[in-house]
Amino acid sequence: MLQPLRDRVLVRPSEEEKQTSGGIVLPDTARKRPQEGEVLAVGAGRVLDTGLRVPPAVKVGDTVVYSKYAAMQVSSEGEDLLLLEEDAILAVRD
Amino acid sequence: MLQPLRDRVLVRPSEEEKQTSGGIVLPDTARKRPQEGEVLAVGAGRVLDTGLRVPPAVKVGDTVVYSKYAAMQVSSEGEDLLLLEEDAILAVRD
Amino acid sequence: MLQPLRDRVLVRPSEEEKQTSGGIVLPDTARKRPQEGEVLAVGAGRVLDTGLRVPPAVKVGDTVVYSKYAAMQVSSEGEDLLLLEEDAILAVRD
Amino acid sequence: MLQPLRDRVLVRPSEEEKQTSGGIVLPDTARKRPQEGEVLAVGAGRVLDTGLRVPPAVKVGDTVVYSKYAAMQVSSEGEDLLLLEEDAILAVRD
Amino acid sequence: MLQPLRDRVLVRPSEEEKQTSGGIVLPDTARKRPQEGEVLAVGAGRVLDTGLRVPPAVKVGDTVVYSKYAAMQVSSEGEDLLLLEEDAILAVRD
Amino acid sequence: MLQPLRDRVLVRPSEEEKQTSGGIVLPDTARKRPQEGEVLAVGAGRVLDTGLRVPPAVKVGDTVVYSKYAAMQVSSEGEDLLLLEEDAILAVRD
Amino acid sequence: MLQPLRDRVLVRPSEEEKQTSGGIVLPDTARKRPQEGEVLAVGAGRVLDTGLRVPPAVKVGDTVVYSKYAAMQVSSEGEDLLLLEEDAILAVRD
Repeated sequence: MLQPLRDRVLVRPSEEEKQTSGGIVLPDTARKRPQEGEVLAVGAGRVLDTGLRVPPAVKVGDTVVYSKYAAMQVSSEGEDLLLLEEDAILAVRD
Repeated sequence: MLQPLRDRVLVRPSEEEKQTSGGIVLPDTARKRPQEGEVLAVGAGRVLDTGLRVPPAVKVGDTVVYSKYAAMQVSSEGEDLLLLEEDAILAVRD
Repeated sequence: MLQPLRDRVLVRPSEEEKQTSGGIVLPDTARKRPQEGEVLAVGAGRVLDTGLRVPPAVKVGDTVVYSKYAAMQVSSEGEDLLLLEEDAILAVRD
Repeated sequence: MLQPLRDRVLVRPSEEEKQTSGGIVLPDTARKRPQEGEVLAVGAGRVLDTGLRVPPAVKVGDTVVYSKYAAMQVSSEGEDLLLLEEDAILAVRD
Repeated sequence: MLQPLRDRVLVRPSEEEKQTSGGIVLPDTARKRPQEGEVLAVGAGRVLDTGLRVPPAVKVGDTVVYSKYAAMQVSSEGEDLLLLEEDAILAVRD
Repeated sequence: MLQPLRDRVLVRPSEEEKQTSGGIVLPDTARKRPQEGEVLAVGAGRVLDTGLRVPPAVKVGDTVVYSKYAAMQVSSEGEDLLLLEEDAILAVRD
Repeated sequence: MLQPLRDRVLVRPSEEEKQTSGGIVLPDTARKRPQEGEVLAVGAGRVLDTGLRVPPAVKVGDTVVYSKYAAMQVSSEGEDLLLLEEDAILAVRD
């Protein structure tokens, strides 16, 4: 299992995202059309200049809308996952 | 329903905006000509370096003028909406 | 009526500016030659990292010299106005 | 009369500068060769993140050496003047 | 032995990474596909503007997932290692 | 005489530098090969965000090694001098 | 002798580095392959926004691994040395 650091979040893309992931995603498209997925793990949060740590705004199990721009692709136990900066997560779907 | 994070704001573009949304919007035009819409949900606000959180300057139901530049297109319950950074919202129409 | 947010300022360009507004303004020219207009509304001011809010340096009714660079064009009650960042306002004409 | 805002300074270019102002000034030249002029008015100073205001380092009547790069050309009572950021003023001539 | 400074981390790439290291890694690929390795040494942490030092989030012996982008290649006792900024380390594998 | 402002420093290039100053200095060369000169005057120091002023690290009469990159050429009493940001001064020669 | 200012460090490249210094070093290579040398002198450290000074993490006599990218070449008593920002020094060799 992967434990993200600082403000990183580990996300499993939804099934729909995976099916289209074989295609080429242009940076511009990635920026304009966010994706959806499930939060699997979150870091402890980033550290401010004052030394305070900001707890992440999402938690394990959340369904989130995120920008795929600047996402890092990682594999964990045979599954393709994404490591995102928390700032790339735009909203939580209730 | 989508709950925006931090300083993100969920906006429903006005009818007029939707009709023209099929056309190609050049970045420069998007920057010079703001759009109008209704605020559907707001995040808790961004966190300053001091750890303080800035409450959003807009509230649900506000009619706002916003810059479409850097907006993310999301769909929620079959409707096309926008996720904006609060900073992209320039004014509230009284 | 439009109520600007944060450090935005709503400005009515002077008559002279309007007459020339049909022409193409090159970014470089806009940067070198500021314009004049009247302040119609001001935001509450931007928030510093310390959480303090800086009150705007201009007030409603001021005749101001501003840089048209990065101005947003809005219409309000049939009139073409500009939404500027306060930082784009360079001076007040006494 | 123009009253500059924040850290802006109103400067009257020296006679020598005016005579050459009809020519094209390349940005690179403007950066390498500062100009001289007289301070006509100064803003109240820029506001730091702590909310403190930094009083300007120049005063009305000072003969200053400034970088013409990023200067804004304004006219006041028929005279061509410059609005500079205080940071573009490099030195005072005693 | 190398002792990294500030927020630098010394990492030994996994065997798999070494085998492919003869190939050309395009910057874009390096950014999208993180690598794995073992932490050999960590710096004392970076210093914040407040003078506080942030202790590193990884420790010697951790298996980490890192972005090879901006990594510096160093040799120590005949072995090819990497010096990374801590920020390039995205997650720890449990 | 010129009195530099903030973190500016007035420097008289050494004789050797002056002889070669007729040639074209490429930016890259200027960055890689610092020059030498004598400090003639220093500003009061730059102001930090906390309002504190940092006193300059050099004093009148110091022989300094500086990067000519971004230097401004000024003339004072018929002599060609340089106005540098203090940050462009790399070392003092004892 | 040269006394570096602020966070600058004076380094004597190792013999191996000197032999290859006649060749052209491409920026990209300089970034990926750090060099080694001996610390000859260190500045007093950079000043933080809070006014605190960060003491350098290296001391005279240290053998250091550094990035040659952005190094300034200086000569002192007939010897070719380098002036580096402390941040370009990545590790100390024990």
